[in-house]
Amino acid sequence: MNDIKTASRSRHAETVSARISPVGGLDVLSRNEVARLRDATQSGLHALLRRCALAVLTSGSLSDDARGLLERYPDFDVQVLQQDRGIRLELTNAPAQAFVDGQIIRGINELLFAVVRDIVYVSTQIEAGQFDMHDSSGITHAVFDILRNARVLRAHQDPNLVVCWGGHSISREEYDYTKLVGYQLGLRGLDICTGCGPGAMKGPMKGATIAHAKQRRRQNRYIGITEPGIIAAESPNPIVNNLVIMPDIEKRLEAFVRVGHGIIVFPGGVGTAEEILYLLGILLHPDNAAIPFPLLFTGPRIAAPYFEQIDRFLRLALGDAVAERYQILIDDPTAVARAMVKGVDKVRNYRLDTKDAFFFNWALHVPYEFQVPFRPTHEAIAEQQISRDLPRHALAANLRRVFSGIVAGNVKEEGMRAIEQRGPFEIDGDPAIMRALDALLQDFVRQQRMKLPGTAYVPCYRVRNAA
Amino acid sequence: MNDIKTASRSRHAETVSARISPVGGLDVLSRNEVARLRDATQSGLHALLRRCALAVLTSGSLSDDARGLLERYPDFDVQVLQQDRGIRLELTNAPAQAFVDGQIIRGINELLFAVVRDIVYVSTQIEAGQFDMHDSSGITHAVFDILRNARVLRAHQDPNLVVCWGGHSISREEYDYTKLVGYQLGLRGLDICTGCGPGAMKGPMKGATIAHAKQRRRQNRYIGITEPGIIAAESPNPIVNNLVIMPDIEKRLEAFVRVGHGIIVFPGGVGTAEEILYLLGILLHPDNAAIPFPLLFTGPRIAAPYFEQIDRFLRLALGDAVAERYQILIDDPTAVARAMVKGVDKVRNYRLDTKDAFFFNWALHVPYEFQVPFRPTHEAIAEQQISRDLPRHALAANLRRVFSGIVAGNVKEEGMRAIEQRGPFEIDGDPAIMRALDALLQDFVRQQRMKLPGTAYVPCYRVRNAA
Amino acid sequence: MNDIKTASRSRHAETVSARISPVGGLDVLSRNEVARLRDATQSGLHALLRRCALAVLTSGSLSDDARGLLERYPDFDVQVLQQDRGIRLELTNAPAQAFVDGQIIRGINELLFAVVRDIVYVSTQIEAGQFDMHDSSGITHAVFDILRNARVLRAHQDPNLVVCWGGHSISREEYDYTKLVGYQLGLRGLDICTGCGPGAMKGPMKGATIAHAKQRRRQNRYIGITEPGIIAAESPNPIVNNLVIMPDIEKRLEAFVRVGHGIIVFPGGVGTAEEILYLLGILLHPDNAAIPFPLLFTGPRIAAPYFEQIDRFLRLALGDAVAERYQILIDDPTAVARAMVKGVDKVRNYRLDTKDAFFFNWALHVPYEFQVPFRPTHEAIAEQQISRDLPRHALAANLRRVFSGIVAGNVKEEGMRAIEQRGPFEIDGDPAIMRALDALLQDFVRQQRMKLPGTAYVPCYRVRNAA
Amino acid sequence: MNDIKTASRSRHAETVSARISPVGGLDVLSRNEVARLRDATQSGLHALLRRCALAVLTSGSLSDDARGLLERYPDFDVQVLQQDRGIRLELTNAPAQAFVDGQIIRGINELLFAVVRDIVYVSTQIEAGQFDMHDSSGITHAVFDILRNARVLRAHQDPNLVVCWGGHSISREEYDYTKLVGYQLGLRGLDICTGCGPGAMKGPMKGATIAHAKQRRRQNRYIGITEPGIIAAESPNPIVNNLVIMPDIEKRLEAFVRVGHGIIVFPGGVGTAEEILYLLGILLHPDNAAIPFPLLFTGPRIAAPYFEQIDRFLRLALGDAVAERYQILIDDPTAVARAMVKGVDKVRNYRLDTKDAFFFNWALHVPYEFQVPFRPTHEAIAEQQISRDLPRHALAANLRRVFSGIVAGNVKEEGMRAIEQRGPFEIDGDPAIMRALDALLQDFVRQQRMKLPGTAYVPCYRVRNAA
Repeated sequence: MNDIKTASRSRHAETVSARISPVGGLDVLSRNEVARLRDATQSGLHALLRRCALAVLTSGSLSDDARGLLERYPDFDVQVLQQDRGIRLELTNAPAQAFVDGQIIRGINELLFAVVRDIVYVSTQIEAGQFDMHDSSGITHAVFDILRNARVLRAHQDPNLVVCWGGHSISREEYDYTKLVGYQLGLRGLDICTGCGPGAMKGPMKGATIAHAKQRRRQNRYIGITEPGIIAAESPNPIVNNLVIMPDIEKRLEAFVRVGHGIIVFPGGVGTAEEILYLLGILLHPDNAAIPFPLLFTGPRIAAPYFEQIDRFLRLALGDAVAERYQILIDDPTAVARAMVKGVDKVRNYRLDTKDAFFFNWALHVPYEFQVPFRPTHEAIAEQQISRDLPRHALAANLRRVFSGIVAGNVKEEGMRAIEQRGPFEIDGDPAIMRALDALLQDFVRQQRMKLPGTAYVPCYRVRNAA
Repeated sequence: MNDIKTASRSRHAETVSARISPVGGLDVLSRNEVARLRDATQSGLHALLRRCALAVLTSGSLSDDARGLLERYPDFDVQVLQQDRGIRLELTNAPAQAFVDGQIIRGINELLFAVVRDIVYVSTQIEAGQFDMHDSSGITHAVFDILRNARVLRAHQDPNLVVCWGGHSISREEYDYTKLVGYQLGLRGLDICTGCGPGAMKGPMKGATIAHAKQRRRQNRYIGITEPGIIAAESPNPIVNNLVIMPDIEKRLEAFVRVGHGIIVFPGGVGTAEEILYLLGILLHPDNAAIPFPLLFTGPRIAAPYFEQIDRFLRLALGDAVAERYQILIDDPTAVARAMVKGVDKVRNYRLDTKDAFFFNWALHVPYEFQVPFRPTHEAIAEQQISRDLPRHALAANLRRVFSGIVAGNVKEEGMRAIEQRGPFEIDGDPAIMRALDALLQDFVRQQRMKLPGTAYVPCYRVRNAA
Repeated sequence: MNDIKTASRSRHAETVSARISPVGGLDVLSRNEVARLRDATQSGLHALLRRCALAVLTSGSLSDDARGLLERYPDFDVQVLQQDRGIRLELTNAPAQAFVDGQIIRGINELLFAVVRDIVYVSTQIEAGQFDMHDSSGITHAVFDILRNARVLRAHQDPNLVVCWGGHSISREEYDYTKLVGYQLGLRGLDICTGCGPGAMKGPMKGATIAHAKQRRRQNRYIGITEPGIIAAESPNPIVNNLVIMPDIEKRLEAFVRVGHGIIVFPGGVGTAEEILYLLGILLHPDNAAIPFPLLFTGPRIAAPYFEQIDRFLRLALGDAVAERYQILIDDPTAVARAMVKGVDKVRNYRLDTKDAFFFNWALHVPYEFQVPFRPTHEAIAEQQISRDLPRHALAANLRRVFSGIVAGNVKEEGMRAIEQRGPFEIDGDPAIMRALDALLQDFVRQQRMKLPGTAYVPCYRVRNAA
Repeated sequence: MNDIKTASRSRHAETVSARISPVGGLDVLSRNEVARLRDATQSGLHALLRRCALAVLTSGSLSDDARGLLERYPDFDVQVLQQDRGIRLELTNAPAQAFVDGQIIRGINELLFAVVRDIVYVSTQIEAGQFDMHDSSGITHAVFDILRNARVLRAHQDPNLVVCWGGHSISREEYDYTKLVGYQLGLRGLDICTGCGPGAMKGPMKGATIAHAKQRRRQNRYIGITEPGIIAAESPNPIVNNLVIMPDIEKRLEAFVRVGHGIIVFPGGVGTAEEILYLLGILLHPDNAAIPFPLLFTGPRIAAPYFEQIDRFLRLALGDAVAERYQILIDDPTAVARAMVKGVDKVRNYRLDTKDAFFFNWALHVPYEFQVPFRPTHEAIAEQQISRDLPRHALAANLRRVFSGIVAGNVKEEGMRAIEQRGPFEIDGDPAIMRALDALLQDFVRQQRMKLPGTAYVPCYRVRNAA
């Protein structure tokens, strides 16, 4: 950071150009790797780098329109330079908000180099055929390897990683509640992992930061796991000190369930629903019946209806037994933290008994259908079989895909374009489930959980058979 | 902290008994020192220890009634034990809020041992006649020694310590503003020093904590400087990681101006006014004319009237030239932080030019009348000469004492008792100043800046000649 | 190390069995990697692990007979276990010398896990076809990747790594001299890299350790670069805190010249001569003419003849100009250290000018013939063309292979077996060079530089045309 | 260290002038303290500072003539400067051996500032009457305070500090043996404390340094405890990373027995004999009968006679029971280390049982006669009563003083001057003891244990009644 040479403000007065060197972490690249990142035409790595870097640099800005970002900074560029002491990044016309008086915020500096690290690694390892991606075990090993390379997997550490899911667009009251829960988790020595972004993904980290300061914890982990399709909409908060960019949403979800020792779900929208269905689908698989996995749904008093709706939908679609896998706790951060400590303790004992790693949940069976990337086209969504004749985990997998499609249609570049061109996705299936689904989605719209507030929401889906 | 042996809850269910060992800092006491701390009868050190320890343990509770504290925890006790690995503290019936699931919060643990350290040090050094306390230089050396022993004075560090003054009882909006200012200071690598307690003394530290996390700063300093008379009313927040207990309010004020490289004043009440008069009194002394000392008054939009009133009073009492020593910045945290960076830079250059220490402002002349303890009796307050015939710094010194008396009458044990017995303090002097003073104090009452809100304020003073 | 469960002494009273967990470094392995290491039959990784682990565990023992080692510890075994907190190693009947009162020496613990790390990495990356090993650049990238994975490549560090070459079997006086040189290098903040093993590879590290302690340097690097064929004969000293096991001797040599910022050659035998020819062969390549590379030959007074012989041979074989690339300094450790500081400074400036990495000498051209593994069979050695008609660097390459063959015949398992079966290697070529070579080798025999003293040396070679 | 401004070599080419700033430790001095150190005339602190600083700067030079040192560097001076970032030392015409290429060795830098720290502390605390020096407990508290201020007393650490005593002038073989013992102690995690200086006081630290490197121990302690009278003759080796300058020899000896958890005695001369008598005198006191204190005498095979002589003398003078307090182990470093580990373990258990501090042996009774400074004048030595009618500990105290006198006559400035003026000290007493004493001293002379070898020894004493 001391090496920043030029930090001149561009004509528009809201951008900065600077050359930065990494302040920590992996910064040794080979000549080949630097060459690949610089290659704008063939490999496409440079475009990916530019997009992810821009997301990191706009951290904190409230907008979930991925395309808007690139349009707001049309002249932004990032180049990787190999120099005497390691690599540097040359930023041109970068968002000024990432800088303080011309100096880049150190946390953002770290995140930028994490982006470089993961893009290089995924490109040289996964894409170079190091892993068999048509095989469940091959995919799991790829997830493992990316996380290990990002230094997320730490041996010698007792289980203490809590994954927090929830909406990026939540009310002030709900946001403050996520801070209180993070504070109580932090007081108890738990670390936080989220999907980056604002809202329920930022609050717990802020709360935990204050609690960790009070507890004088130094080696805190605020892990953010994202993927290129979502990073623009949910740019990582600089409190995140361990950012990983997984190649796609399925590997991101697998990363969450493999590294987390427990999961807390705050109020959210369709993305949160997708995550819940993903996790319950896996936990409902018979092979996972014995594996402990603390799962808590929580929010302030005003969020009670949200979880009642979710609970109702889950029981209707997947049967009442599904509710044994989660616990709903309303308006009680201390109780949430205590329940999580207790749950994580069970996880710890289970791993000790089964001689499984603390840092990676090898024992959890993630079926191939939850691993393979789902491209949310109109056809793919229409194809999903939504029927109570399916095994529960298979039905959960299909419902997960439907929600994934809606997320894409709402905030992802590719999905938004498809909706613009061909109209809303059509969702069809078992009428009872369709009715419940339609009700749930309408509740989300009503509660402004679909997109950031302030814009009228135009649904990107149509539920059939719901009448 | 691992050595906590017993943590049983008492009958009243809101206290905890535990034996704790220090997690850091100075914990090597001699046999004599331990004996002195245990001696309940003669030296009085144990009573002092008990009072200060209780204040630290109730950190975060909102009450500024010093006497109430001891009444709420009548069975509380603390004993110092000498053991194999060093000293331990045996806490009996301690406030439960200092513990998380039976384990003491590590930051509170540190603060407790800081209390022991300072009580022992002051008692063995100052009281043992190590310093000539009837001499300005002797007092300054005592202040230096206590700060050095508390590891507050760090060589090899560029000036970066910002003292924040302001009320412990401020509105939510004002509190949030202090967090924003702390955040902007923290982003610029500045450390924070306050008088401990809630409100304007906690907000800047919280904001800076988040900013320091984003900037990946590790050796952050959140210094709290307090004294036995005020600690119960303004118990230190556990974010404070460097607590010093000065022997009295005058040494505490001298500590602020010797270690701080700049001072920010947030809205407050009479305590804040006292601090402003103390500092301006010193800065107005002819010997200090050339010494740079950044002093900023700031608050959110709603606090503008407060600073206008202060400004008006200062100009009237001390002359318009006084205003050259401070800058008022309303509702602009970034501008405040930038102005402070600039001011601290001037301090740095001045010290380099004059070969003065970065860590202690030796050059500043603090006249003896600002150093000698003022006991706020009815007589002492009535005696203060408030006249424009005095040199400006002498007048400021006397006004400072008047405000000090009102603080004591409002929240300090001794002062409150005196008021109960003999009625309000009488303040008298130059009619113009009296009128201005009365108006100012009435504004404070109206704005609920006298005590924590919720209680009707009964003035502990009467201004004469103000009609 | 705290996790050592059982440390029982076996029947023979000189072995210990223990289960150890890593004290630092990379200890996160995937399920596949653990499985590969455990697989005794197919991949052969387990045999390699057992051999290298045994070498590390016998660190400090004076023997250069690789086969003897396995015979002395026939029951030794090592197994990799995956457990809750990471991997562990189960050692059975391990040499007792690696333990102090039943506890493994921590440095040896680290080296053991470095062995695991490199064996896994080479096997999964290089052998899995990640690099094109038939291409000079591909090989260099493989060398880079293994070193990066072993954390040898550090960005943000000024050039300061001195490679020390020389014999593992040297006289006490020569050994003490290497300590003095290491001490002078250490006083000047230089780090040490050697090929592991005793003698000239251990002395500089010991000397530097004392100097670094006096200079209070904490992040010292004592890098050992070895390969499976030599590790048994030259087991790493536990002062080595950064061990890398390269796949073969050519990659090991390339690693030395890519990471070292200068090289000091102490007296040695044929192995040292091989290293000298390797380096000079590269430096004589026209592409490398402009690249600074400090190369010093040094020893105590008694070693002067050795370097005179080497110098004479090099000038005769490669021309007088070769001597411009090295400097001979006899009996002056301070002068050696100063010359190295000066040389490293030139390297630093050159890298700055050419924007090359400090941590890896990308600019140095290492021709493919120096990179491709040479198997020292009777045929291969007989085939080497030793003629002054060749370009100098090509002749140096061939001479290097001849010396490499003699090293193998002297101390490597495969080479010794070949000699036993088929008699000495035949070396042939230009008569003047043959005569010089024969004289040089006879000097080595006379000076007891061929094998550890105490055994009569039976030459493993025959020089033709030398009469 | 980066702040060294000028490092010009003086006319004599063996001195360097430089301005250095502290690299660690206590470097915050008050204005008064700086003034006292600068004051050349009154307080005498500057002369003391100059003498001690010079000793530190000649570390490693072999000479035990304290006066010679000041004569060799007549122009040497040291001044303390107060500057922006703390204090600096201005060195004029300092010995070049403390510098490497114009930069001071960092360990020597640390030792210099330790000298400043202790001189200031002793002067402001002890001399200012903080302690009652006419009272045994007052003296012990002064010892405690000086050690605490020097950061020697560490809470939270298990007993592991081994004091090594022995001659500064020993043979190469004996010196190498002390290194081997230090190595075995270091492998077992023990730290070393000696009296500074060369020989038996340096060897164990060097050996332990190598062992600690192999064991990857980072927080190693190499404590040197010296006093102004001896520092010039036994200048501290820069491996010492915790230097304390006690005010006189008695406080130095008390420091050893209060902080050490066990003591190893290597061969030495009269100084070593003095130390042995001091310790045994204390251990023989009835109050100390139950206190465990491991005491080992050890040396290589050639040192066996030395310990036999000592043993014989001790038994004769103090009775056979004295031998229960020590163990003689010849030529077995591993056995020595194991015996020490076992002994320290007993100390640990004893402290746990008695709730005594690990870091300071409060329980040991050191009688006042062992604490009060002894000035070795002719009269004082002649006065010592050497009679078997005395209690054993009192006789040991008197014999200790006799040896102390001989040490002074041999190597201390004051003592040497007294001998020059008035001839040898006269020693008288019980004839049997006198004969044994005379024999012992003659053995010392014969074995060249009186002074550094190479000079003919002229005895500074005459034993009466020995014929």
